[in-house]
Amino acid sequence: MTVAAKSEIQIDNDEVRVTEWRLPPGSATGHHTHGMDYVVVPMADGEMTIVAPDGTRSLAQLKTGRSYARKAGVQHDVRNESTAEIVFLEIELKA
Amino acid sequence: MTVAAKSEIQIDNDEVRVTEWRLPPGSATGHHTHGMDYVVVPMADGEMTIVAPDGTRSLAQLKTGRSYARKAGVQHDVRNESTAEIVFLEIELKA
Repeated sequence: MTVAAKSEIQIDNDEVRVTEWRLPPGSATGHHTHGMDYVVVPMADGEMTIVAPDGTRSLAQLKTGRSYARKAGVQHDVRNESTAEIVFLEIELKA
Repeated sequence: MTVAAKSEIQIDNDEVRVTEWRLPPGSATGHHTHGMDYVVVPMADGEMTIVAPDGTRSLAQLKTGRSYARKAGVQHDVRNESTAEIVFLEIELKA
């Protein structure tokens, strides 16, 4: 059984929404489409399994404190098939 | 003598500039004015000494992974008078 990822909104103002995501081993976000451009700040080293809408799977490495940016429209399920918790902040840009 | 804070730009696109700041003990950013609204993501627990333009000093606690937002126009010098390195990401919002 897949457990759900845990999320907590830290900031939600006119410009940004900042959400802390925690994915325990075995958890997944579920398929979703990003409605806003966003920045990810990994809070721990980790490995995400990314599942595209067509089922294609890929691995993505998270390095603590190494941010990256993505554009709106990204569609995926993010799964934790590793043995370590995945923790990151997602900064969605409303402008 | 005050040593300089170290900064590294991680992302600089149309929407955001993300800078990693590292302040070793005894270092300072120097007085500066924020030209953009910004979000701070602390990468370590720490204590900053904030010096306002009039010289008023205050302490601010950083908690790993607990983000906060500030508006453009903030003026201050950020100093590390603690014994632990201060590390955070600054996400400046260009929009």
